[in-house]
Order: sequence, then structure tokens, then C-alpha cells
Amino acid sequence: MARDLDTEAPWLDALAWNRDGLVPVIAQDAKSGRVLMFAFMDRAALEETMRSGEAVYWSRSRKRRWKKGEDSGHVQKVRDIRADCDGDALLLLVEQEGGIACHTGRESCFHFGLRGARWQAVDPVLKDPKDIYR
Amino acid sequence: MARDLDTEAPWLDALAWNRDGLVPVIAQDAKSGRVLMFAFMDRAALEETMRSGEAVYWSRSRKRRWKKGEDSGHVQKVRDIRADCDGDALLLLVEQEGGIACHTGRESCFHFGLRGARWQAVDPVLKDPKDIYR
Repeated sequence: MARDLDTEAPWLDALAWNRDGLVPVIAQDAKSGRVLMFAFMDRAALEETMRSGEAVYWSRSRKRRWKKGEDSGHVQKVRDIRADCDGDALLLLVEQEGGIACHTGRESCFHFGLRGARWQAVDPVLKDPKDIYR
Repeated sequence: MARDLDTEAPWLDALAWNRDGLVPVIAQDAKSGRVLMFAFMDRAALEETMRSGEAVYWSRSRKRRWKKGEDSGHVQKVRDIRADCDGDALLLLVEQEGGIACHTGRESCFHFGLRGARWQAVDPVLKDPKDIYR
């Protein structure tokens, strides 16, 4: 078991940043309870999220910060920020603009269910991606 | 945006294992909807989870697999396994034995809320850890 989060430390220092200076973040819809997506934040993304009240992440593939919804309009308004017991993961409770977090037009990015020995898309597409990204 | 998960590939190969051969896993209570914990699995842990129907994780600090609940009895019965759109994270929907996932005796490991500039434990302790681990 890793060391418990130090509640006396300044909040950004209390987190267990990984070797890349990132912390994994789970976004959950505050109303539906659906887990929407999983991403990372660096310190600046977390500070900006805190300051603006809208989720900003760090893209490992594009190596830059991105505001969720910058292209799609599917902004996440942050209602609460939670840390886990050892401070190495965050949970964001969000109000998901448009009710869609996934680039495929589904509510949640976790739309593949394990069925037999294959992954199968089991959630409905709520909006055609062509109508989201134009 | 990383490549989408290949639904034609065998399920274990379809996942985007990280450079340590692990995949991050979110456990969510299937009934209460609470996000319970965040951990990692290696291939063997995921196979064992699938085979046994009870969550087995990989501990990065102890460098070994551990069955959730092996000491506490707080086993997680797996009701569904989900993958996200690019296959680099898993979501487990579980029935949490005892209704307690955290070693502090709370329902969820995400019990620290950001209050002002400090993290504060905001969820009740349901059972004294001394009575969980003896």
C-alpha cells in the first residue's frame, strides 16, 4: 500500500504525480453516474481546471493540454474534484455538456463491453460524429 | 486521438497495454454507481479476473498480483468489463462485498474532496480498519 495522501500539504503537492508529471483522471457524470472517460492532467491542466471550473486535460499523444470540448463543444463543468486515498488518481464529477463525452457520439468512452472473447460496442450513438466535428 | 480499439482482435490483444505491460482499471459499484477505486492489471490479472469473476489487480508498489479482498474479505464480484474507445483503460462494474472498497473503511477510495486549497476526507468511515484487518 502506498503512503496515504497528506491532507496538510498544499493540494497540488499532496498528489502523487507519476514519473511523467501526470495524474490519471476519471470523469464521472454527476447526474447519470456514468463513468465518461479516463485521461491525464499535468499540474497546469489541473490548476486551469480548478480556476476555470471546466475540465482541461493533458494529451499524451499530442503532447499538449486540451480543453475538453474545444472542438466538439462537449465541455465538462466540474462539480467536485476528488482524490483517492494515496493521492495517485483523481475523480472529477462533471456536468457533461450535450450528454456526450465520446468522440464516437456516445455518452461514455467506455462503450465496449466484453462479450465472449471480443469487445463489442454496446452503447447507442446519440449523435453522428460528422455533426459534432465540422 | 489514439487509434480506436480493434473489435476484430482477440480481446487481450485489442487493449493498449502501457510500457510496463499494464492497463489502468476503474472499479465502479454496479448498484450505488460510486467509483470505488483505481488500480492496474497486467494480462495475467485480467485473465484471472475474467476466469474467476472476481477482481485481481497488479500492485505496482509490491510488484505482485493481489486479489481484491484477500486480506479484508472485501472481494469484488465482476458484473461487467468495459473498455474505452482507444482500449487504454478498463471499467469494471462490480458488486462490492461489504460495501467497502477502501482500506480506511470507507465505501470508496475517492474520499478526499478538494475544499479550499486542501484535501479533506468527506466520506464516513463505515467500519474501523482494525476490525477489517486482524
